Amino acid sequence: MIGSIQTYQTYIEDALKDFNLPSNPANLYEPITYFMHLGGKRMRPVLTLMGTEMFQSDFSSAKSAAMAVELFHNFTLIHDDIMDEAPLRRGNETVHKKWNRDIAILSGDALMIEAYKQLTNYSPEALSQLLPLFNQTASEVCEGQQWDMDFETTSSVEIDAYLKMIKYKTAVLLGCSLKMGAIIGKASEEDANALYAFGVNLGIAFQLQDDILDVYADENKFGKRVGGDIIANKKTYLLLKALEDANEDQMNAFKTLFEEKDVVAKVSGVKALYAELNIKEQASEKMNSFYQIAMNNLDNIQISAGQKLPLRNLAQYLLGRES
Amino acid sequence: MIGSIQTYQTYIEDALKDFNLPSNPANLYEPITYFMHLGGKRMRPVLTLMGTEMFQSDFSSAKSAAMAVELFHNFTLIHDDIMDEAPLRRGNETVHKKWNRDIAILSGDALMIEAYKQLTNYSPEALSQLLPLFNQTASEVCEGQQWDMDFETTSSVEIDAYLKMIKYKTAVLLGCSLKMGAIIGKASEEDANALYAFGVNLGIAFQLQDDILDVYADENKFGKRVGGDIIANKKTYLLLKALEDANEDQMNAFKTLFEEKDVVAKVSGVKALYAELNIKEQASEKMNSFYQIAMNNLDNIQISAGQKLPLRNLAQYLLGRES
Repeated sequence: MIGSIQTYQTYIEDALKDFNLPSNPANLYEPITYFMHLGGKRMRPVLTLMGTEMFQSDFSSAKSAAMAVELFHNFTLIHDDIMDEAPLRRGNETVHKKWNRDIAILSGDALMIEAYKQLTNYSPEALSQLLPLFNQTASEVCEGQQWDMDFETTSSVEIDAYLKMIKYKTAVLLGCSLKMGAIIGKASEEDANALYAFGVNLGIAFQLQDDILDVYADENKFGKRVGGDIIANKKTYLLLKALEDANEDQMNAFKTLFEEKDVVAKVSGVKALYAELNIKEQASEKMNSFYQIAMNNLDNIQISAGQKLPLRNLAQYLLGRES
Repeated sequence: MIGSIQTYQTYIEDALKDFNLPSNPANLYEPITYFMHLGGKRMRPVLTLMGTEMFQSDFSSAKSAAMAVELFHNFTLIHDDIMDEAPLRRGNETVHKKWNRDIAILSGDALMIEAYKQLTNYSPEALSQLLPLFNQTASEVCEGQQWDMDFETTSSVEIDAYLKMIKYKTAVLLGCSLKMGAIIGKASEEDANALYAFGVNLGIAFQLQDDILDVYADENKFGKRVGGDIIANKKTYLLLKALEDANEDQMNAFKTLFEEKDVVAKVSGVKALYAELNIKEQASEKMNSFYQIAMNNLDNIQISAGQKLPLRNLAQYLLGRES
């Protein structure tokens, strides 16, 4: 599977190499160039290319839209890193660490504008369809980020509010990436909307999987410390579901564990409570339900099964269902 | 004169009253609503309305573009206030003070997106002309802000670099505001470009006047402390010109004054050096030269003198030439 998405990824990496910014002011543009070349799976622009190729077999017309979503995504990362006070991004220093806060704010702003510039490469008719979608998605991504920040200081977060947060913060940009591709590929409005829904539901499933893996992954494969969310008392789907289902004793046990300083004891204590409450199974079921809705969305698109295959494979790859 | 721009200002204030954002997340949208209602002269959207009215007598079609430039301008102010660590904006708390840094970053981002949303109210053809201009201007405003920040730690700033900085940081958005109005008013490309140049040159003249007033204004009329730039060692046109012209003794006198803690002695000392070096006259001459170029740009527009009158009056009003 990885082989088949590599074609798209290579195409995006080449497009990023051709993406040249002015050399001055260096403190505005060097951080952008640095950040854009930190790597990453380039999943969003790959989706845009796939979204076009499904409908018209040549994805090169999707290049600028693919660049737009990748540039926009990286703008959000630069600003999120300031808010999270994160020192590292993909193993390298974040922009606010390597330069400073003000440069990270301003180069993030400039990067968002670069994303919008990419859209001007389309015809007036295509632009007038792409821009409202891009704007709406951009607003929702900000809303999702704000809810995520709000939840840190909210004592009781509803499961539905959490699902809406991950939908806005992450999933809508996947849907947007695909739908922009569909628009460029001249898909029907129904097909473009079904593809958008596929991306959003797949994105929610992917985020739920992320919550599950943080607790239950094989540490060698996961790439980061298992249990990090538990240690940070992060309000994941697993924790919110557990707190919703907990009886009084279990609730008190959670409250004690939130204050526990011994991280090994904390992780094993929370995992024991999750086991009592069947949290892994419930979270997997929720993830599967979004995955199934995504597959139904894909089924509803009026093109051949063969044309849908790359996207079906990508979904299986993203959710570790390669079997 | 103030009477005649009031019609446009009232129109903008009404448009801002109709500008409704979602109520949630409150921490994202309340800061925007708060900030947009802190007041201000609304000079940029007024220019957009005037730019349209010059060519087609009814400015209502310019409403969304006028909103776009005003929203964009306020986005830059919210982020600039973080970078400047400014506690107050128009006598009220800045967003990062009233809320916090992260909310100021994110609500600024969301406000920029709102500016782009306004542009989607135009036809595909108009949008395809407005968006590249808006993007280019937005990038230049970021560049200007970065240069301004860079200059704080640059020992020797060239006059030309300073003029480019104020052009990008402030003047190009005035040109853009007018040209967007001209595009909506279906002006010829030549007229739209001449109007853009008028706005840019007027903007540079206005910024130079700001530098002059900071030293030589009547404190009762100026509204802020006279000499603030001198006290802060701010690299204004006046200071840069003085340092360019200074002989060795005068240069040493400046260096001593930069360290002077007694602000009254500091301001009078720098003003004495400015007098020796004819700085007020030289700065006024530079300002007048940009004003004259702006007037020539206006002359070149192929419409009647009567249609140009509101803009000519506005320029005289902005530069205090009401006589």
